[in-house]
This record gives sequence, C-alpha cells and structure tokens, in this order.
Amino acid sequence: METFIGIDQMGQNAKIASRKLRMLESVQKNKLLGVMAVTLEKHKSSILAANQLDLDAARAAGLKDALLERLELNEKKFGDMVTGLKQVMELDDPVGEIDSMHINQDGLEIGSKRVPLGVIGIIYESRPNVTIDAAALCLKTGNAVILKGGSDALLTNQAIMASVKEALIDQELPDGCVQLVESTDRNLVKELLEATKYVDCIIPRGGAGLIKFVVENAKVPVIETGAGNCHIYVDEGYEIDAALEIITNAKVQRPGACNAVETVLIQKNASKALVPELVKHLTEQKVSLFLCQNALDLLDDIPASVNLATDLDWSTEYLDFKLAVRIVDTLEDALNHIDEYSTGHSEAILTHNYEHARMFLAAVDSSAVYVNASTRFTDGSQFGFGAEIGISTQKLHARGPMGLRALTSSKYVIYGDGQIRK
Amino acid sequence: METFIGIDQMGQNAKIASRKLRMLESVQKNKLLGVMAVTLEKHKSSILAANQLDLDAARAAGLKDALLERLELNEKKFGDMVTGLKQVMELDDPVGEIDSMHINQDGLEIGSKRVPLGVIGIIYESRPNVTIDAAALCLKTGNAVILKGGSDALLTNQAIMASVKEALIDQELPDGCVQLVESTDRNLVKELLEATKYVDCIIPRGGAGLIKFVVENAKVPVIETGAGNCHIYVDEGYEIDAALEIITNAKVQRPGACNAVETVLIQKNASKALVPELVKHLTEQKVSLFLCQNALDLLDDIPASVNLATDLDWSTEYLDFKLAVRIVDTLEDALNHIDEYSTGHSEAILTHNYEHARMFLAAVDSSAVYVNASTRFTDGSQFGFGAEIGISTQKLHARGPMGLRALTSSKYVIYGDGQIRK
Repeated sequence: METFIGIDQMGQNAKIASRKLRMLESVQKNKLLGVMAVTLEKHKSSILAANQLDLDAARAAGLKDALLERLELNEKKFGDMVTGLKQVMELDDPVGEIDSMHINQDGLEIGSKRVPLGVIGIIYESRPNVTIDAAALCLKTGNAVILKGGSDALLTNQAIMASVKEALIDQELPDGCVQLVESTDRNLVKELLEATKYVDCIIPRGGAGLIKFVVENAKVPVIETGAGNCHIYVDEGYEIDAALEIITNAKVQRPGACNAVETVLIQKNASKALVPELVKHLTEQKVSLFLCQNALDLLDDIPASVNLATDLDWSTEYLDFKLAVRIVDTLEDALNHIDEYSTGHSEAILTHNYEHARMFLAAVDSSAVYVNASTRFTDGSQFGFGAEIGISTQKLHARGPMGLRALTSSKYVIYGDGQIRK
Repeated sequence: METFIGIDQMGQNAKIASRKLRMLESVQKNKLLGVMAVTLEKHKSSILAANQLDLDAARAAGLKDALLERLELNEKKFGDMVTGLKQVMELDDPVGEIDSMHINQDGLEIGSKRVPLGVIGIIYESRPNVTIDAAALCLKTGNAVILKGGSDALLTNQAIMASVKEALIDQELPDGCVQLVESTDRNLVKELLEATKYVDCIIPRGGAGLIKFVVENAKVPVIETGAGNCHIYVDEGYEIDAALEIITNAKVQRPGACNAVETVLIQKNASKALVPELVKHLTEQKVSLFLCQNALDLLDDIPASVNLATDLDWSTEYLDFKLAVRIVDTLEDALNHIDEYSTGHSEAILTHNYEHARMFLAAVDSSAVYVNASTRFTDGSQFGFGAEIGISTQKLHARGPMGLRALTSSKYVIYGDGQIRK
C-alpha cells in the first residue's frame, strides 16, 4: 500500500483538478460518468470481495446488524449503484445556466451564471454506495471531491476507487478529481475540516454524532444535513381513516429515515375518537407509543407498548418503531410545540380548515411544511431532483432536499464596452 | 447603565422576536422602517453628542486619522443614514416570493418559498452607520439581528439603538428584534460565534483580521465578506487610452474599496507601448508602482515611486495608491497568475478578441468577472440591488454583492390531499 499523501497534498490536487473540471462541457462530464459505470461493473468481483473482507472484520469486531446491513454490498445494492450512476448522467447539468441577466444604468450587461462550487469534501459513514453516488453528483456539477468514508468500509471504498481512477485515466482527467482519504486516522477528518485554502464546502452524511463533530470543528463552510424530529398535527374535523393512513405511512414505511414522523399532535376535540384508534392501529404495526397524560386518559386499557411520555420524548428523533403523541388545545399550541422541539426538517398539518392550513404553512419554520400529506415525501427523488446529496436542515445556501443545484455556486459575468465608475 | 444580559439571553430574545418578525407583512415592516427614520432624526442631537464623546476618546487613545474618519458621524453622514433607511423601505421585499412550484408524480403541489433566515449576527468595526444600515436590511427581510459593533463606537451605537428601540416600541415589537452587544468584552464575540442554538448566520463586516477571526472561531454558519485582490488583464490590441482610463478608474477612484484593482497584467506585445504610459499616468496620480523586471526594463527613467515587484506584491491587497504590474506572455499565463493570487473578488479583461473574452469569463473563478469595464462596479447599488449587506467572497449561499435576497432562505411548502408515500 502506498503511503498516504496527506490532506494538504490532496487539497492541492483537488484544486488543480477543479480548474480542469469547471471547464468541461456537459457532454464530457456525462461521458466520464458513462465510463465510470462501465469500469464499476468491470471491478464488480474485486469490489464485492473487498466488501466481504470489510464485513468479516466488522462482524469480528462485533458490529450490530443494522450497521452490518449498511456496510454490505450485495448483488442488488451493486446494481442500484450502477443504475444510480446512469441516472445522474441523464440529469440536466445546472452549470452554465444564466439565472438572470439585466443591463444596468451604465449599460453593463450583468448576468448571474451557475458555476461549480470547486472542491467539495464529503464525510460519511459505513454505506459504501455513497462513494460512487457522491463522486457522480460532484463530477456532474464540475466539482472535485475529497471523500472520507467510514473506517469499516475502507477496503470496499478503495476497490470502488480503483474503478473510478480507471475511468478518470480513460478520460485523461487527473486523479485529483476524486480522491479518497485512504486512512482510518480520525485526525485527518479534522485536517480536512480546516482546509479552507483548498476546500470550498464540506457535506457530512451520517448520524447526529458525525454531524455535530463536523459543525463544531469545521472552518470550511458546511452544509448541515441534520436530524429530523418531524411532527404531524391533526386538526379537528380531519377524517380518522385518512389521518391513520398518513400517520402510519409517515411512521412505519421506513422508520429509520430522517423524514419519518416522531411526534403526532392532536387537537383536543379530535383526540377522543382518534387516540384509541391510533393506539390500536399502530400497536398492531409493532409501534411503541409515548402518550401525554391526557391521551393516556382516553384509553380503556393501556397495552404494554404504550407509555407515559416525558419531555425527552418530545425532543427525541427515535428513527425506530416508536411514536410520541400529545394532545393540544389549539393550533397555536401545536405551533408552539413545534417551535420548541422541531429540528426544522419536515412537519405536516392534516386539516380541512383553510385558515389553519395557511397559518401552519406560514408559521412553521422547517425545510418542508405539508398540508394533508405524509412527511415521508421530503426526498430529492420525490421532489423531482432525480438525485439527492442529502437533506439540509440549515438555512444558508440550501434547505431541504439538495439536488445538483445545491452543489453549484454562481458568479457574475459582466459584459462592458469600456465603462468606468463615476 | 444596565448590567449586560449575556449572549445566551440575547439569543433567546432574538429567537422569540424572529417568530414575530417572520409573520409580518411587507407593509408592516415598511411602516417600522419609516418610524425608525423618524425616531433616528429625533435622536439626532444625542447621537451626534455621543459620537463626539467616542471621537474624543479615540483621539485621546491615539487612533489614526483614517479610523477616526470612519468613526465620525457628521451632518452629511447622518443625513445619508436616514436616506439609506428610506431607500431600504422602498425596496421590494423578497420574503413570501414563490421561486418555483410544480406538481409531482403523486399530485403534490411543491413550491419553494422565500423566508427570513431567522436570527442574523452582524459583527463590524468602527463605522456607526452600519448599525442602522444592518438593522434596516435585516428587519426588511423579517430577520432579528444581534449587532456587535466596534468598541470605539459603543456610545454612538447605544445612542442609535435608543432611537431603534423607540421605533420598535411604537410598532409594538419586542426589543429582541434588534439588539446591540453593549459591552467591549471581546469574549462575547466568541460566544456569539458559537451560539448555534439561536443564531442562523453570522456576517462579519470589516478588515481582514476581523474576518479571519470570525471564520476561524464560528460554529454558526458564516457569510464571508472577504478581501479583494483584484486584477485587470490587458490583452494585445486594446487601445492604450481606453486601458489607461479603466485602470486609473479601478485604482484611483477609491483605492480603499475592496473592488479596486491591485495588479495589472499586460500581454507582452501590448506592454511596450502601455507600460511607459501607465507609469507616467499613474505617477501623476500619486500611485506608487511595483513592476516586474520585464516591465521595469521598458522604462527609460525609473521614477522614485516605481519599484521592483516581489512575490509579496502579487498577493497584497494594497487598499492604497499602490499598484503592481506584471507582463505575461499569454492569456493562459494571466489566468494562471489570477488562479494563484486572486482572492476571488473581481477581475477584468480588456480585449477585442472574442475567444479571449469568452475564455476569461469561463476560466476565472471569481465572484464578478468583467470584459472591458472597471472592477469598481462590483457593488450592490451598481448591480441594481439598491442596498448591500456586503460582498461575499465565499461560494456557499451568496457570492458577490449581497442584496436583500442574501438575507433570506427558502422553505418548501407542499399542498396535498391525503398523499402517502408508496
């Protein structure tokens, strides 16, 4: 194995590569992605073999099943990686678009043009498919990328990188276009987070711990892809069946997703009929429930899986078959609860009241605010972006599901004929 | 004097105020700004008196003339503050605009709506006009703001804040809408930079030292308003007179501005005629010059104000009557020089060659790239934004001159009729 070249050298390589990448036309970038799909397939057996070694080591180290599942690359997941790559190839390239152009008082034509960000650092955990996915999205938008995957997946990621390098060589592009931090030394993450000289933006993809570490240590600008403590508020007058269907979907369809609902707020007058039904319905679906005292009081029997909620339940992102339920007097109380506990990801109101719908949409300060739909739709593919680099829960640069556009910046291009400022 | 309430309490107050501000309609926000203009005028004598005290103290402490000039509020500057406030009132409010809306495959109507950022921290130096300017821009866009001005200007800023508070009370808005860190303790800046719980964004306005401190210490997302080491490249075939006029404007009209030119690159074949004329012309304008050896060799006599440039000259933002000049063989050499030394602010090419203009616009990675115009146009008012909170030299969120839109975020508003995700 080669000696690791260090973050500073990687930064320099990436910066030089980004100069080349930002000048590429869409057709050239798409050709590269096409070749990457071919070389990825070609390296399939070595990638799956490397993944087997990573899995064996992880099992020996006692990793939990959920983590092993994330680390595992099987036939299906491998196929999805290749398909994903081809899908990114098909997307429209935002780079080069002129968002606006006008002529100013001096006759200068001033346009705002989409350009690549430059060098992007992606820090992620054990899913090896992120390696190819992030590389594809960054290259498509003309960015160089430095990848730091989970230590557990290092052999898999190195095997994937071998296929990426082959594609870069085929297209006569420098190695610096896509680089992997091939070391498990955690100090390197800190170095990457401080590489303001070379890196334009860091995107963490992973759990709350990783994101916190990145936000607290980065000097490079970060796009925070944060937690989702999502809420559904059921207003008076909304049909019980429809409410049950939406809540169940938002909780059960994929409980580990950041857009899954974690707390349901129910308007007092709706609660008497809804709470017992909701408990019955979700208990059948193996969901444990954490109810406020007023909700508990509405139950004749309290099943073993139903508990009294504490303040901690309101602030917890369960990512599991668990749901908190609270009765509120008014829409305003629901809004106050959401203001206090929401992480600003996705919230929904279920209502037939026009003013309530309008108030909820205006007052809730989250990346996605729904009327009468499941929160599970907060997702790049559902929003029509075709691909997603993550879901931003910060307010700068990008908010909500981030597609290719979130990986671009803008610059002003100004056409003059000798103007000077008076 | 009251005891200072602390950053944490200010953050809480701002957060509560921002909930109120984000629900205001444009007409209410404009009314507030109108009242602020009235109360500002009303407090004029106490503000000017406070400024006199700040100035006396600064003079006694031996502050340089340039800094005293920044600190000083005179009749003219006071009038400009009031006018500026009224101008912000007249601008279109971006909040509430729907940038795009589409119907997805499930029939959800998905719109992207402009919303306030929330709570903005502005950290600035001795210019007291920033206090009212920043407050106006933040309020206009529905943001609460925490201001930390220079210690030298504390009495002036407190007097200005008294007028702002009176306007907030008049409009029945909480104090938390606009707060001033009324302390000269520098540790409070660090606390503000770490207040991720309350503050959505920090914008530093000031010199390189301040900006570096903010970038290195902030955990809250920052919009960097950075230095401008700006370049003009004169291509072969561009008229000497027109080049002289543009370069002189870019250097001399306001040398202390971040969009002033600092290095002129001249194509070899253009240099023989241009360099002697440029030296003659700029020497008359009291500009000191730093020339590469090849440029020096073109001079018959070397005036006292002309020196041999060192590598340091290429990387220095003079902000003064100083200019570096370098002869390059080709456009590519000019692009390489700019890539190496530019801070990514503003660069211009002077050319009649179509391909060169196009290449320069595409290859230069700066916030504003010009063909045949002075770099001095990089400015919110010149770009038609009406007002400017600063010029961003980073690539995330906003790049180049930032108007009201840069003080907003977006959220997705989604209208459904019972959709669940399959």
